[in-house]
Amino acid sequence: MKLAELGEFGLIDRIKANVAASPSVLLGIGDDAAALSPTPGQVTLITSDMLLEGVHFDLSFCDPFTLGRKSLSVNLSDVAAMGARPRHFLLGVALPKDVPLEFMDGFMAGMLEQAGRYGATLVGGDTCASKGGVAISVTALGEQRPELVLKRSGARPGDVVCVTGTVGDAAAGLKQLFGGVREGFLVRRQLDPTPRVEAGVALAEAGLVTAMIDVSDGVLQDMGHICEMSGVGARLELARLPLSDAYRAECGADPYPLALSGGEDYELLFSIPAGREPDVAALCASVGLPVSVIGEIKAGTGIELVAPDGSSYTPPRRGFDHFGAD
Amino acid sequence: MKLAELGEFGLIDRIKANVAASPSVLLGIGDDAAALSPTPGQVTLITSDMLLEGVHFDLSFCDPFTLGRKSLSVNLSDVAAMGARPRHFLLGVALPKDVPLEFMDGFMAGMLEQAGRYGATLVGGDTCASKGGVAISVTALGEQRPELVLKRSGARPGDVVCVTGTVGDAAAGLKQLFGGVREGFLVRRQLDPTPRVEAGVALAEAGLVTAMIDVSDGVLQDMGHICEMSGVGARLELARLPLSDAYRAECGADPYPLALSGGEDYELLFSIPAGREPDVAALCASVGLPVSVIGEIKAGTGIELVAPDGSSYTPPRRGFDHFGAD
Repeated sequence: MKLAELGEFGLIDRIKANVAASPSVLLGIGDDAAALSPTPGQVTLITSDMLLEGVHFDLSFCDPFTLGRKSLSVNLSDVAAMGARPRHFLLGVALPKDVPLEFMDGFMAGMLEQAGRYGATLVGGDTCASKGGVAISVTALGEQRPELVLKRSGARPGDVVCVTGTVGDAAAGLKQLFGGVREGFLVRRQLDPTPRVEAGVALAEAGLVTAMIDVSDGVLQDMGHICEMSGVGARLELARLPLSDAYRAECGADPYPLALSGGEDYELLFSIPAGREPDVAALCASVGLPVSVIGEIKAGTGIELVAPDGSSYTPPRRGFDHFGAD
Repeated sequence: MKLAELGEFGLIDRIKANVAASPSVLLGIGDDAAALSPTPGQVTLITSDMLLEGVHFDLSFCDPFTLGRKSLSVNLSDVAAMGARPRHFLLGVALPKDVPLEFMDGFMAGMLEQAGRYGATLVGGDTCASKGGVAISVTALGEQRPELVLKRSGARPGDVVCVTGTVGDAAAGLKQLFGGVREGFLVRRQLDPTPRVEAGVALAEAGLVTAMIDVSDGVLQDMGHICEMSGVGARLELARLPLSDAYRAECGADPYPLALSGGEDYELLFSIPAGREPDVAALCASVGLPVSVIGEIKAGTGIELVAPDGSSYTPPRRGFDHFGAD
């Protein structure tokens, strides 16, 4: 069955039928706007990302279910990086008219499964025809008490820099996909990232973190965002970058360029006061996530990179810029 | 200057520099998510729309300033149709790399001017490269007291059906644009619609309205949405449809098909208890907007259309369906 047979409003009804009710949603899909009841005493965290076919994803690399999951995950990751709990989301999707209905069914199943896992309710959005490829826009909302919200701007000289999980995997997975590989750990890290929601919320509520960001543009560039917003510099030790075995097998000959510049790992990069490393390790262990100390915050500006032999390291590229040269 | 020279983060900084501060925005553009402080006792109304080049707009028809204004207006219209005051919005924009910087400067100037007029603050979003045309996604947030929110579902048999302004203009303007016309009242109605924010809020706060929607898909289809959500039918009198002089000059020979099915007028279509017509007229006059009674709500289902000679009227098409036949 093609979308044209179901029609725009048929598609909306089909999506709506699979969305569970939530007490905070006074009015969900089907009116001019959704009506949400904010939790008293909490602030609303809100973020929006577009995913375009041919730019952010390739339909020959991934099935619709996984694409639906990733489209939500990247937005939940931004909510998590503020230390907030996901609550609601909106989905805009533009589809070529000849897309089979099975595509949307798979996409929505992946997205709604991930939404259920992290407590986010679909409340609205937009569906329309596309004359180009598939275009997706997700807006995610979360909530947290204002004093617990984790910004990029709170890092102070002397703080220790930490990152969850491993870095470089998603970029190495993309490299593999372009080389014809379609499965394995690195490919899964690219196509199906895990938003670090439990860790983000736990770190915020423990009051351990001075500044946080998710690694979407690469460790070096995202560290740069923290430094710029905090008015500080940083020193990162390459030998301490957490690299997976699969990453080492793929990129071991020259592991640092991609580990520093590769985006889309969606790990949490954050600063903590010196001495709180054991608390952070215990907290991350309690949610089943490894955490590594990779450097420290310094007074001044700029990021100093230290090679394993102690020499200064200059990376070949900094990170991803959407309008930069290819 | 091309976007590629400025870069993604240069573009974000350039946009951010033109955004005014707002007390409800604890954290605006530049972090993983924006942090908003909801007004106690109010609910959040949220809506999202995509606008795609070649589907929703043609860059040969309109300048970037007007496109920026319309991109926000269509979302503010959805907020207004709930009877809510616009507060915040997010912008996602995907741009081909060769787009000149002047395009984004004009687009943002139009959008931010309109935002200022209606009290909406830009708090975040996403910028990325597009390999196709320009793609725009706007998410708008508004607030209102929960008991004043106007849904599609409150129409009752015996209610009177009203619409603000005139209908069919935007569709007639689109017809003119395709015919090579580039100016005039109808073209402006298509390219630069006015969201009926003052009227929507005033109607909600006066407690006059039982159900409301904005006319984005055409009077007939949008009336159908109210009927479906309210579990009622309606009877509309074609002779009472408010048609502009320009519309009559363009479509006077057969005015009803486009007046019924033409979308994008962004007028407010709503039902009120019988007898409240003078109050609604006075209220709309106070915000400088004409209002017309065009029919009534009936028990049952379906919309009965009455031609000027009293006979039953069957329209050639119902309204716009994004996935329907062209």
